[in-house]
Amino acid sequence: MALDYPNFSFDIHHRDEKSGARLGTLKTPHGAIETPNYIFCGTKAAIKALSPAQMIEAKTDIILANTYHLMLQPGADLIEKMGGLHKFMGWNGPMLTDSGGFQVFSLGEGTMANEIKGKSTGKNENRNLMKITEEGCVFKSYVDGSTIKLTPESSMEIQRKLGADLLMQFDECTPYHVDKDYTARSMEMSIRWGDRCLVEFERHDNGAQGLYGIIQGGVYSDLRRISAEATKDRPFFGTAVGGCLGGSEEEMETVVAESLPYAHPDRPVHFLGIGQMKDVFKFVRYGVDTFDCVIPTRLARHGTALMKGQKGETINLKNAKYREDETPLDEENGVSASTDYSKAYIHHLLRAGEILGMQILAQHNVATINRLMREVRASIKAGTLDQLEKEWLDL
Amino acid sequence: MALDYPNFSFDIHHRDEKSGARLGTLKTPHGAIETPNYIFCGTKAAIKALSPAQMIEAKTDIILANTYHLMLQPGADLIEKMGGLHKFMGWNGPMLTDSGGFQVFSLGEGTMANEIKGKSTGKNENRNLMKITEEGCVFKSYVDGSTIKLTPESSMEIQRKLGADLLMQFDECTPYHVDKDYTARSMEMSIRWGDRCLVEFERHDNGAQGLYGIIQGGVYSDLRRISAEATKDRPFFGTAVGGCLGGSEEEMETVVAESLPYAHPDRPVHFLGIGQMKDVFKFVRYGVDTFDCVIPTRLARHGTALMKGQKGETINLKNAKYREDETPLDEENGVSASTDYSKAYIHHLLRAGEILGMQILAQHNVATINRLMREVRASIKAGTLDQLEKEWLDL
Repeated sequence: MALDYPNFSFDIHHRDEKSGARLGTLKTPHGAIETPNYIFCGTKAAIKALSPAQMIEAKTDIILANTYHLMLQPGADLIEKMGGLHKFMGWNGPMLTDSGGFQVFSLGEGTMANEIKGKSTGKNENRNLMKITEEGCVFKSYVDGSTIKLTPESSMEIQRKLGADLLMQFDECTPYHVDKDYTARSMEMSIRWGDRCLVEFERHDNGAQGLYGIIQGGVYSDLRRISAEATKDRPFFGTAVGGCLGGSEEEMETVVAESLPYAHPDRPVHFLGIGQMKDVFKFVRYGVDTFDCVIPTRLARHGTALMKGQKGETINLKNAKYREDETPLDEENGVSASTDYSKAYIHHLLRAGEILGMQILAQHNVATINRLMREVRASIKAGTLDQLEKEWLDL
Repeated sequence: MALDYPNFSFDIHHRDEKSGARLGTLKTPHGAIETPNYIFCGTKAAIKALSPAQMIEAKTDIILANTYHLMLQPGADLIEKMGGLHKFMGWNGPMLTDSGGFQVFSLGEGTMANEIKGKSTGKNENRNLMKITEEGCVFKSYVDGSTIKLTPESSMEIQRKLGADLLMQFDECTPYHVDKDYTARSMEMSIRWGDRCLVEFERHDNGAQGLYGIIQGGVYSDLRRISAEATKDRPFFGTAVGGCLGGSEEEMETVVAESLPYAHPDRPVHFLGIGQMKDVFKFVRYGVDTFDCVIPTRLARHGTALMKGQKGETINLKNAKYREDETPLDEENGVSASTDYSKAYIHHLLRAGEILGMQILAQHNVATINRLMREVRASIKAGTLDQLEKEWLDL
């Protein structure tokens, strides 16, 4: 195939032999980012409670949007007509879209996040997902109840219309509770879906977008290896690790440890839907270059602040102990949300139900994660990642 | 009395003989504002959905906070301990607090706004207000159900602790449906409460705050005149027009027209709780210097944008006709919320339930009102207020 992504590049300019982590520069038509980095979720073409200007103030490099939500509302055609996602939402930096598959296959909003982390009981039913076949899947729109088909080809078409820089192949995201046989058949189908994505992608390729393949295979090391090698052998720009990542932190680590050695060594690696601080420290060591997770903004909506040097990574500002706490969240984040308000004021805002409370926490959390990633990059360069991890996680 | 407000001044530097409007400069320890101007409601020590920085970006000069809400949560003692409202909420400009009376006497949240505008049927009962006596009033806290007494003295004490620049005397805000006898007795009591406020205010006066008297008297011209003259004769820094303003726009205008000629001619005049665009144009002609109203941010939460040159002053961005509208809200407001997003994008955000939609509209609405006030001031100077009114209200 002739896919050479002339407007994209990924340059690994440092490898830390000790930790296994690497430093790279990922170039897109909307600018370059240094890696490791963190991709913030602008699910429905908006970061929850933050404007693009506030994201930039928090030193954000890259965001993503979700194909599934946007295809339903306002629709890919409308976004294309409005000039694409970048123009529509006023974000001029690099952007990623997922394939839509993750949400289609998730068991109602929010539960797939448990699936990824192996917390599902298998009892939930996905009432919106109607059928999965070789062709693709059929599901019911949560917006208007209409029946919608999503295939590798339509996912590519929709992502082309949305116009993000980095795209994801369409894949089936298998849940934790399915057996190895199902996982194997699903993983093989995802490889075929990846091939169909590549064909469809190339048909319209004008150099504006780069396509990631996704490694599936559930918690089974041999399946992960097959999927990783198949992805490596195909002309994707990047590699993503997707699907169920195990029932425990150890299992999740094993999955990654046994996938990435078989992935393409020179392509950027994205870890789908994972992004606690401890995950960042763990998985940069396996060569993960980018992370994404909803937690920075979701935690904010629950009154929770991500903190450097805090056991458990967070504090809950609703807690009565912050009622008279005059200290700001963090003097060193370099953003007004972290430095200009006392914890007592944020506590008051949350108690009073003021939206501003979550806005402040959302910007603080994004700034904290961006600072984490800057410090992670600096420590990889300096060979001090272990020490930085101890500082951040209070080990 | 020795109240001379050495750190405050109000200088009327232009009177437009044709329209009756005036231009002034109101100086406070936290800076000066040009009048006519608009005071935005930061009810619970926060502008709904906007940070202080975003308010400044929208060219805001002055805000207010509500004593009633803050005395209940987080409490005046806490705010004093945290250094006062300015420091607590990060607003370094001029600020006003009301007396707490308005909300105590209101018939549940939101209904007093109808009372002011004469829309009440008289059928509602204020379940939280337990007793009004010469001493003050007793009510139940909506936060924890506890019984709370508010008097002229405690209102002054609380407002002193909150630490705003401009304070309001404690008064009874009489509803529309009460008769003239009740209104007269209430108005006389508010005068006595005003005297008690002045005594209490002076006891602690350190030059940091300026006290407004409030003209009451319901819809009765003779009572309004008595109240206005009593307020003029007392050493208040400013004059506020409060209470029920009639059952129709004409009645509201008559009330103001028959109050302000008897008010102190050199003091700043604030119109409590009134602030549609048409009100601004109408009442600056009677010498009103400042307005306040929750509508800029409340409308935003309902998907509504204040617009220059729009019949009815507003458009509702939820309307399907904005689905593909690529134009921004207003190129001339000089703030990102008005210029950087298409109506189609805001429509999408509102449809998708994204908080960012209301944040954008809140900043746009505040910026629109601030621009209105700048243009009103310029037109008073130029003698073109009539023409500006036609432009803004599409007459």
